Amino acid sequence: MRGWIDVSTYPKLFKFSDQSDRVICLCTAGSLSISQALVNVLQRDIKTEATFNLYNLPSLYDVARYIGDTIRQLQERDRPWLERDNIDFQCSFLLGGQIQGEEPGLYMIYRQGNFIHACPETPFLQIGEAKYGKPILDRILTFETPIAVAAKCALLSIDSTMKSNVSVGPPINLMMYEQDSFEIGYELRLERSDPYLREIRSAWEISLNEAFNRMPDIDWRQAL
Amino acid sequence: MRGWIDVSTYPKLFKFSDQSDRVICLCTAGSLSISQALVNVLQRDIKTEATFNLYNLPSLYDVARYIGDTIRQLQERDRPWLERDNIDFQCSFLLGGQIQGEEPGLYMIYRQGNFIHACPETPFLQIGEAKYGKPILDRILTFETPIAVAAKCALLSIDSTMKSNVSVGPPINLMMYEQDSFEIGYELRLERSDPYLREIRSAWEISLNEAFNRMPDIDWRQAL
Repeated sequence: MRGWIDVSTYPKLFKFSDQSDRVICLCTAGSLSISQALVNVLQRDIKTEATFNLYNLPSLYDVARYIGDTIRQLQERDRPWLERDNIDFQCSFLLGGQIQGEEPGLYMIYRQGNFIHACPETPFLQIGEAKYGKPILDRILTFETPIAVAAKCALLSIDSTMKSNVSVGPPINLMMYEQDSFEIGYELRLERSDPYLREIRSAWEISLNEAFNRMPDIDWRQAL
Repeated sequence: MRGWIDVSTYPKLFKFSDQSDRVICLCTAGSLSISQALVNVLQRDIKTEATFNLYNLPSLYDVARYIGDTIRQLQERDRPWLERDNIDFQCSFLLGGQIQGEEPGLYMIYRQGNFIHACPETPFLQIGEAKYGKPILDRILTFETPIAVAAKCALLSIDSTMKSNVSVGPPINLMMYEQDSFEIGYELRLERSDPYLREIRSAWEISLNEAFNRMPDIDWRQAL
């Protein structure tokens, strides 16, 4: 008998930005078959100029509903076959972007097709292996954080996740969108060997250790 | 119709240290009914001087097996009733301590009754809401970390967890055991208003922000 471990890399960040009136980005986590099928349908609907598609829907809210409905349809087709083998396919999606006449928006769409959106009180959303990287976001990000600082914080959040769960790894794809620009002005793909990634990772590690060493010691005298 | 939120506090850290040849500590997470039942049985077996109990088992490995077996028995009794209502009761346990003639040991016991133990390569174990607090442990702790430094790190780890999941909260119970002492020399219970907890929380928050601000900016010029 032979065995193997399949470690593969798949794109998880997709942009739909050929129109001058909108920028739409989609980030996927979980079931690869559902994610790929979804992106396929979204692209096909644009190409065939379907009644509802990413390029004609009037608002980001409508786009979120359209994507949620599409996820539901895709699941309907596979569900009986997956359930028969007790396969529980988790997946979730981040939808971000801006359509002319609206503010930029950020939605998290669940596998069930329902969704929530970010708000000033909770200005970030995460999908996938989210918990390891949440503490730094909780401590740094507010609605007022400049976008470039937020991007750096997101990168350190992913780096913490990679450190605590080795199945999460590079390349890291980053996109940054500036309000009312209607184009993805900043895009980056960081491989494991990327000098900046190595630099910020090592600097963060050192800084955290220094910060930790400065913390006041526990005073055990006030014992129980 | 009326509603309420039930926020309760229960002890989750138990020590069994009346014997001069051993110190045994148990930390519980998850299903309160199983946890409380377990502690009850452990105490009863000591009191009735059962064939196997925490005070007569010859090694920490045997103690882990005994606790695992007890968890299995307790679950057997409740399982049909819980399954009938689709209640999935997760629980897990940390067993730490030392029995004379052995090195100190640390075990994690799963709800299924099987268990693992910490080793030099992975010198810490966590139960419960573990992910938020893991990054700082991953970055600070090694097998060589002095015990008092490790305790401080554990405290900051729990603090990160409390920050990212508000359903986790004080009091925090800390125990520190020094090898070959055969007594719990250090014990602490920190309430939310505890001055040290407030001080270290605020100092950590400030240090993290300062460290973050020193991180090099993303260089977007090397765009895709």
